Amino acid sequence: MKVLVINGPNLNLLGSREPEVYGRKSYAALTEYIKKTAELLRIEADIRQSNSEGEIIDALQSASASYDGIIINPGAYTHYSYAILDAIKAVDIDVLEVHLSNIAAREEFRKVSVTAPACVGQISGLGFYGYRAAMGYFSEREEMANE
Amino acid sequence: MKVLVINGPNLNLLGSREPEVYGRKSYAALTEYIKKTAELLRIEADIRQSNSEGEIIDALQSASASYDGIIINPGAYTHYSYAILDAIKAVDIDVLEVHLSNIAAREEFRKVSVTAPACVGQISGLGFYGYRAAMGYFSEREEMANE
Amino acid sequence: MKVLVINGPNLNLLGSREPEVYGRKSYAALTEYIKKTAELLRIEADIRQSNSEGEIIDALQSASASYDGIIINPGAYTHYSYAILDAIKAVDIDVLEVHLSNIAAREEFRKVSVTAPACVGQISGLGFYGYRAAMGYFSEREEMANE
Amino acid sequence: MKVLVINGPNLNLLGSREPEVYGRKSYAALTEYIKKTAELLRIEADIRQSNSEGEIIDALQSASASYDGIIINPGAYTHYSYAILDAIKAVDIDVLEVHLSNIAAREEFRKVSVTAPACVGQISGLGFYGYRAAMGYFSEREEMANE
Amino acid sequence: MKVLVINGPNLNLLGSREPEVYGRKSYAALTEYIKKTAELLRIEADIRQSNSEGEIIDALQSASASYDGIIINPGAYTHYSYAILDAIKAVDIDVLEVHLSNIAAREEFRKVSVTAPACVGQISGLGFYGYRAAMGYFSEREEMANE
Amino acid sequence: MKVLVINGPNLNLLGSREPEVYGRKSYAALTEYIKKTAELLRIEADIRQSNSEGEIIDALQSASASYDGIIINPGAYTHYSYAILDAIKAVDIDVLEVHLSNIAAREEFRKVSVTAPACVGQISGLGFYGYRAAMGYFSEREEMANE
Amino acid sequence: MKVLVINGPNLNLLGSREPEVYGRKSYAALTEYIKKTAELLRIEADIRQSNSEGEIIDALQSASASYDGIIINPGAYTHYSYAILDAIKAVDIDVLEVHLSNIAAREEFRKVSVTAPACVGQISGLGFYGYRAAMGYFSEREEMANE
Amino acid sequence: MKVLVINGPNLNLLGSREPEVYGRKSYAALTEYIKKTAELLRIEADIRQSNSEGEIIDALQSASASYDGIIINPGAYTHYSYAILDAIKAVDIDVLEVHLSNIAAREEFRKVSVTAPACVGQISGLGFYGYRAAMGYFSEREEMANE
Amino acid sequence: MKVLVINGPNLNLLGSREPEVYGRKSYAALTEYIKKTAELLRIEADIRQSNSEGEIIDALQSASASYDGIIINPGAYTHYSYAILDAIKAVDIDVLEVHLSNIAAREEFRKVSVTAPACVGQISGLGFYGYRAAMGYFSEREEMANE
Amino acid sequence: MKVLVINGPNLNLLGSREPEVYGRKSYAALTEYIKKTAELLRIEADIRQSNSEGEIIDALQSASASYDGIIINPGAYTHYSYAILDAIKAVDIDVLEVHLSNIAAREEFRKVSVTAPACVGQISGLGFYGYRAAMGYFSEREEMANE
Amino acid sequence: MKVLVINGPNLNLLGSREPEVYGRKSYAALTEYIKKTAELLRIEADIRQSNSEGEIIDALQSASASYDGIIINPGAYTHYSYAILDAIKAVDIDVLEVHLSNIAAREEFRKVSVTAPACVGQISGLGFYGYRAAMGYFSEREEMANE
Amino acid sequence: MKVLVINGPNLNLLGSREPEVYGRKSYAALTEYIKKTAELLRIEADIRQSNSEGEIIDALQSASASYDGIIINPGAYTHYSYAILDAIKAVDIDVLEVHLSNIAAREEFRKVSVTAPACVGQISGLGFYGYRAAMGYFSEREEMANE
Repeated sequence: MKVLVINGPNLNLLGSREPEVYGRKSYAALTEYIKKTAELLRIEADIRQSNSEGEIIDALQSASASYDGIIINPGAYTHYSYAILDAIKAVDIDVLEVHLSNIAAREEFRKVSVTAPACVGQISGLGFYGYRAAMGYFSEREEMANE
Repeated sequence: MKVLVINGPNLNLLGSREPEVYGRKSYAALTEYIKKTAELLRIEADIRQSNSEGEIIDALQSASASYDGIIINPGAYTHYSYAILDAIKAVDIDVLEVHLSNIAAREEFRKVSVTAPACVGQISGLGFYGYRAAMGYFSEREEMANE
Repeated sequence: MKVLVINGPNLNLLGSREPEVYGRKSYAALTEYIKKTAELLRIEADIRQSNSEGEIIDALQSASASYDGIIINPGAYTHYSYAILDAIKAVDIDVLEVHLSNIAAREEFRKVSVTAPACVGQISGLGFYGYRAAMGYFSEREEMANE
Repeated sequence: MKVLVINGPNLNLLGSREPEVYGRKSYAALTEYIKKTAELLRIEADIRQSNSEGEIIDALQSASASYDGIIINPGAYTHYSYAILDAIKAVDIDVLEVHLSNIAAREEFRKVSVTAPACVGQISGLGFYGYRAAMGYFSEREEMANE
Repeated sequence: MKVLVINGPNLNLLGSREPEVYGRKSYAALTEYIKKTAELLRIEADIRQSNSEGEIIDALQSASASYDGIIINPGAYTHYSYAILDAIKAVDIDVLEVHLSNIAAREEFRKVSVTAPACVGQISGLGFYGYRAAMGYFSEREEMANE
Repeated sequence: MKVLVINGPNLNLLGSREPEVYGRKSYAALTEYIKKTAELLRIEADIRQSNSEGEIIDALQSASASYDGIIINPGAYTHYSYAILDAIKAVDIDVLEVHLSNIAAREEFRKVSVTAPACVGQISGLGFYGYRAAMGYFSEREEMANE
Repeated sequence: MKVLVINGPNLNLLGSREPEVYGRKSYAALTEYIKKTAELLRIEADIRQSNSEGEIIDALQSASASYDGIIINPGAYTHYSYAILDAIKAVDIDVLEVHLSNIAAREEFRKVSVTAPACVGQISGLGFYGYRAAMGYFSEREEMANE
Repeated sequence: MKVLVINGPNLNLLGSREPEVYGRKSYAALTEYIKKTAELLRIEADIRQSNSEGEIIDALQSASASYDGIIINPGAYTHYSYAILDAIKAVDIDVLEVHLSNIAAREEFRKVSVTAPACVGQISGLGFYGYRAAMGYFSEREEMANE
Repeated sequence: MKVLVINGPNLNLLGSREPEVYGRKSYAALTEYIKKTAELLRIEADIRQSNSEGEIIDALQSASASYDGIIINPGAYTHYSYAILDAIKAVDIDVLEVHLSNIAAREEFRKVSVTAPACVGQISGLGFYGYRAAMGYFSEREEMANE
Repeated sequence: MKVLVINGPNLNLLGSREPEVYGRKSYAALTEYIKKTAELLRIEADIRQSNSEGEIIDALQSASASYDGIIINPGAYTHYSYAILDAIKAVDIDVLEVHLSNIAAREEFRKVSVTAPACVGQISGLGFYGYRAAMGYFSEREEMANE
Repeated sequence: MKVLVINGPNLNLLGSREPEVYGRKSYAALTEYIKKTAELLRIEADIRQSNSEGEIIDALQSASASYDGIIINPGAYTHYSYAILDAIKAVDIDVLEVHLSNIAAREEFRKVSVTAPACVGQISGLGFYGYRAAMGYFSEREEMANE
Repeated sequence: MKVLVINGPNLNLLGSREPEVYGRKSYAALTEYIKKTAELLRIEADIRQSNSEGEIIDALQSASASYDGIIINPGAYTHYSYAILDAIKAVDIDVLEVHLSNIAAREEFRKVSVTAPACVGQISGLGFYGYRAAMGYFSEREEMANE
C-alpha cells in the first residue's frame, strides 16, 4: 500500500511558526513521525511540501496512477483554493484532509474549508496524530477490502 | 483509561436512516465496533445516545469527574446548539467531535460546526473509523504522558 | 388507516396564547376537532404534544413502523431544528407540516422552515382546517392507491 | 359560492414540464380535477391561466366584486412579484396560495414567498390535492358562517 | 409643453386599496387632480395606467419623440424591475419618479428603488401633491430655459 | 405660516463642493432662492445650517412650538444618524426631507435614508427646486385646511 | 409577592465553568444569594435550573397562574430558542431576562438575544447583582401599584 | 434546421439606447445581420422581440414543437425573471443565452444571470457576433449529428 | 461615593417624545427620580444631558478623575457611535449602560449596541428603575469592597 | 493573425476529470481541435496550459507584444484570482474568457467570474465549440478592420 | 509650506487610553513630535484636536484657503462618518489619513475606512512615525513641484 | 541595516499598466527610486518581484534570518491570499505593507486587506513615496533603538 502526503504552504516552518498554535516540534519531526508511523502500518509514504498552489495541483495530478490514498494538508489554501478543490475532484483516488490545529477554533475565515467537499473526510486539531489517523484510515480500508 | 462516547439525535436509527449518507450498518454495529476497538486499545468505553439536547448537556456535565476523554457526535445539534458548546467549555476534560459523514460535502448549514471551537478537534467523513481514530487519540496522548 | 399528529412547543396553550395570532379556541378544542375529523374520514388518529425537541424526535422515530402518515406542527422548532429535520428524513413514512397561523405573514425568522424540505408539503394559515386538509391528503392518497 | 382559480406562468405546460417535479398529469387534467372537486363541494369555480404578471394582476383586480374566494398559484412570480403582492392586498376577498411542488425542498430562491404574506395561508407540495384542500377551506368557512 | 404621466400596477384601485396607506381618494380623483394642475401650469398632460411591466416599457419607449418630460409612478415594479430601469435609461427625455406613500417608512423591500438611479429625481410621501411638484419641476425648468 | 429649513453638513460649501454633483450655485444663492420662494408663497422661512449632528437635533427640538413645518436636508447624516431620526420622531410637526442630488444614483451607502422613515416624505434630485416643492407642500396643505 | 427564577443550561456549573467569564462563586452561592435577597425584599422566590429547552418551556407555562413575575437566564438558549421566545409570549406575567456576564462583550453570536423581545427588559453583565436588580424591579412595581 | 431568436426588453431601441454600452447599430441592423448569417449557415431563423415577460414566456412555450434551437437575449429580465427560467426549463429544445454587452463588467446586479442555469450556455460581450456564434453552435451540433 | 449620569440625544424630550415607547413622565421627573434615589443610596449623583456625540465624549473623558462610576444612556448613539465606545474604553472607571425602553423589542437596528462591549453591563426596558438598579450596582459593589 | 490560448488549472486532465461535467474528450483532443480550427480560420494559435496562477499571469504579460488576441480559460481561478484580473487589465490586447461547462448551472461560487470584467466578453457551456467561437470573434473583428 | 493636522475623538487621551494599543506616550508628546518634525522638514504645522464630528468638519472646511495639505486621524469616525467623507471631498487640498494603530489588525468594524476613499492615501500602524511620513509626503511632493 | 522589498503580481508592468491608476513611471524607475532612497537612509535594500503566490511565500520565509525588515506590496494577493498572511505571521521580522494606489478608493474587493493584520502597518496611495516612508520607518526604529 502506498500513500502520498502533501503538505501546503508554511508547514515547512513548523516549530518556529506560531508555536502557540502549531506546537514546537519542527517539520523534520513531522516527516519523521509520518515515516515511522508508515513503517508501523506497513505503508509506503511519500511526503511533499510546497508553498505553491500550482505545485500542489501538479502533485495531486501526478499521484493518480501510483498511489492508493492521498493525505493533504492544504494549509491556508484550504479556505479559498477552488483550483485545488477541482484537482482533488479530478484524481481517481481518495483524498483525506488533515489540519494540525483545530481550524474551527480560530479566525472566522478558517471555519469553512472549500477543499473538504471533494475529500472523503477531514481531521483537524489532533496535531501530528492527525496524520497517523489518516494513514490508519487508508490502512484499515485496505484490510477490510482484503478480508 | 476511561472514555465517554456521546451520540446525538437520530444516530440510533443508523442503518435505516439515509443509508446513502450514513451507510447500511446499524447503531448496534457501531456500539459493538466501539467496544471492540476500546478493548483492543485497553480503554474503558461508556456509550450513550440521546435525541435530547438537554440530556446531552447532562451527560457532558456528569462526565467531568470520571472520564479521561469524551468523544461526541452531536448530530444535527452540531450546527446550532450553543448550549452544547457551553457544556463542552464547562467540562474539564478534552472533548473530540466525530461525524460519520463528511459534513463539508452536504447542505450549506452543515458546513459550519458551532460546537467544534470548544473541542480539541474534529474528525468527519471516516464512518465508524472516526470513533477508532478518536479513541486512538486519547490512548496515544496517555501513552506519551506515561513515557 | 392510521395517522400520528405531533404538536410542538406551546401549542398546548392554544386559546390563551397570543389569541390575535392563534385564535381563541383551546388545545382541547383542537384535539377534539382532529378526532372528529378523523372519524369522518375513517382514520385512526393519535395525537401527541410536547415542548421538548428530543421528545418530538423520539415520537417521530417510534412512529416508523405503526403509522401511514404523520402530521407535524413543529411550532417554533420549525425555524431552527435541524435535528427534527433529520428525524423526518430518517422515518420511512410521509410527513406533512401544518401551521395554524400564516407563518409568511409574521416575523422575518418565521418565513423559512428548515423542517419542510424533508416533508411532502406544508399547509399554513388555515387554522384548525389545516389539520383537516392534512388528514384528507393521507386519506385521498390511500383511496387512490386502493382504486 | 363562487371561487376564482388563477394559475400563473408555465402551469399550462403541466405534464410535459419537469415531470419529476410537477408530475405527469396535464394541465387539462388539473382543470378537470378542479371542476369535479368544485361540483362535489357545490362551488362554482372559474379558472384562468396566464404567463403574464400584468394579466394576473388584472385578474385579481377584476375578481373583487364577484367571488367569495381566490385560489392563486403564482408560479415563479411567487418569489419576486411585489406587484402581485400589492394586488392581493388590494382585493377585498381572501386569497389562498397553492403550489403543486414542495417549494421548501427546491432551489434556495424558492424557499421564500413574497406573495404569501398578503394571503390567508399557503398549501404546497400536495399536488392536485392542494387545490382541493383550498376549495375545501372556502367551503367549510362558508358552512361555519351559515351555521 | 407636454408631459406624460405613467402610473404602474394597482394604482387604478386607489381609494379602495389599503386606504390607510394610499388615502381614500379614487384614481379618477387623481387623474382629475393631474389634469387641473396641468391646466394651471399650462402643461399638456397625458396619463396612462397599466398593471403590466411590458406595457410600461412600451409607454416609455413610445414617449421619446413627443414629450418634454415623463412622470412615472412604477408602483411595486420600483423595487425589482431592471427592465423599466433600462427603458428609462433608453429614452431621451427626463423621467421623474413619484410615489404617493413614503416608501422609506414601509416594508424593508420598499426602501430601495431600482428605477430611481435612471431618473432625474424622486418624490415620495406627498400624496397627490407629488404629481403637482413633479409637473412644477418640468414647468420651471422650461421657464428658466426660456428666460 | 412659518417653516424652518435645516441644512446639514457641507451644504454651506455649495458651489465649490463637487459642482458636477451639486451644481455651481453657491449656498448664498440657495438661501436667497428659499427666501424669494417663501415670499411668493407667503411663508415665513427661517434657515439654519450646521455641520454638527448635535446642533441639528437641537434645532429640530427647539422648532416644536414655533413652526408649521420643517424642511430638512440632513446631508450625509441622512445615511447613519439614528439620533436625528429620533429627533424627527420626537417633534410634533411634519418634517420633509430634501436632497439636491439624486441620492439613488450615487454610492451604495447613499441609497438608503435612515431619517426618511420619520418624515412625511422625501424629495431628491431636483436641485434648488426641491426646496420650492417642499414649501409648496406645506403651503397647499395649509390652504386645503383653510378651505 | 411571588417570583419564579428560571436558570438555563450550564448555570448549575457556576464557579467551575469558565470562571474568568462567570466568576468563581458556585451555583449554590447564587441560589443562596437569591433567597437572601428575596427575604430582604419580602419576596417569595422559587428557583429552578434545567439544561433542557423543553423543561424551561414547561416551567414558563406552569408559572402562569401562580407567580407575579419571572426572572429568566436562558443561558445559551438566549441566542436561538424561538420556542422559549414563544413560551414567554404565551405566559400572562412579566418576564425579565438576566445574564451574569456582559453578553455584548463576548462572541458575535451572543450579541443578539432572540428571547428578549418578549421580555419586559434585560439586565446583563452585573453578576449576581443582576438577579437582585430584577427582584427589585418586581418589588418596586408592586409597591407603586400598592400606593 | 430552424432556430428561434428571442430578444427581450429595450433591444428594439438598439442604436439610440446607451450607445456607449450597446453600440450605434440599430435593431434593424441586428435583425439583418442575423438573417444574413442564417443564410450563410443554411439556418432558417425567426426573430421576435418583446418588452413583456409574459410574451417572452409565450414565445418560448410555442417554440417547443417547431424549432431545433432557441437563442435568447432576455435583456434585464436575465437578472430576476425566475418565470423565464422556468419556461426555459419547460421547453424541450436547447436554449442559448446571448448578451451584446459584457454583463460581468457592468452594475453589480448584472453579474448574475438567473436564466442561464437552464440554458446550455451563455455568450456575452461580443456584440452582434454573439448571435453568429450562437447560430454556429446549433449548426455545428447538427452537422456533427449528421456525420 | 460619586456617580455621573450621562443622558444622550432626545432624552430631554422625555414625556412628550413617543410616550407609547418612553412613557409619559418628563425628563425633569427622571432627574428628580435619580436624585432622590441617589440620596437614599447615599450617592452623590451628577446628571448631564446632551444631544451631541462630541459633548458626550467630552463628559466621559472629564469624568475620569472625579467619579466612582458612570451611568450612560447613549440614546440612538448606542447603535453606531464607535467614538463613544472608544471614550468608554479610554476612561478608567466602570461604565454601565441603561435604556428606558426594551431595545431588543424595537427596530432591527436597535437590537445591537456598539457601546455595550466596553461597559460592565447593560440594563434595558425597566424605565426609570433602570437608573435605580444601576446606582444600586455601584453602591453594592462599594459596600462589598468596604466589608 | 496570431492568437494565444491559455488554459488554466486541471484542464490538462480533460476526459478523465469529471466527464459528466467536462465531457469524455481528452486535452489532446482539445488542442487538436483548436489547431484545426485555427488552420481553417487562417489564425496562428499558440496554446499553453498551467496549473499555476503565477505562470498564467506570466503568460498574459509576455503576450503583450506578439499576439492579436488572447483566449483564456482560467479554470477555477476564474472565481477568485484578482491577480489574473489585474494581469488581463495590464495587457494591451483583447482577452476573451471561455469555459467548457455552463458555469451558471453549477455550484454557487462558480456563478460569478472575477476575471470577466476585464475581458471583452465570455463564452460558457458550449464545450470545444467555445474556443472556435472565440477564434471566430478575433477573426471576424480582423476581417471587418481589413474591409 | 503649511500643513494642518486634525486629530479626532479620544486622541487627546493618548498615553492613558488603551496603552497596549496606542502606546504609553501622551498626546502632548505627539504634538511635540509633530512640531519638531515639522521644523526639521521646514513645514509650518497647525494641530487641532476635537471629539466632535461637526468641529472636525468645520476644521476641514476652514482649511481650504490657507493650507497646502491636511493630515487627518479621524479616530473612530473613520468607520462611519460619511459627513467627514463629504467634507474631505469638499476641500480643495489633499488630505492624508493617518492611524497610530494598525486598524486592519483590530475589531472587524475597524477594517474598513469610509473616509479614506476621499483622501490621497492612508498610513496606519506606524505610531508617531505615521505623522512624520505624512508630513514627508507633502514636503517631497512640494520639492518635486519646485524642481 | 538590511531591508527586503517584495513586489507582487503585475508590478513589473508599472508604467504601461493602467497608468491612470498607477502612474506612468516604469518598474525600473521604482527599483532605482528604492535603491537611491536606501542609499540616502544608509539601508541595504534587496528587491524581488514575482507574479507567483508561492514564490512570494518562499521569499518571505527565506528572509527570516538575514533581514531587519520587510516591505511588501502583495498586489492583488492582498485581498485573498491567506497563505501570504500565514507566511507573514511565520517570519520573525516586522513586515510593512505598501500600495502605490489608494486601495480604499477603488473596487469594493480592494477595500479590505487580508494580509495587513499580520503586518506592523500599511501605507497606501502615496505612490513611490510609500516605499520611502516604509524604509524610513525601519530606519528610524533602528535609530531609536541605537540611541
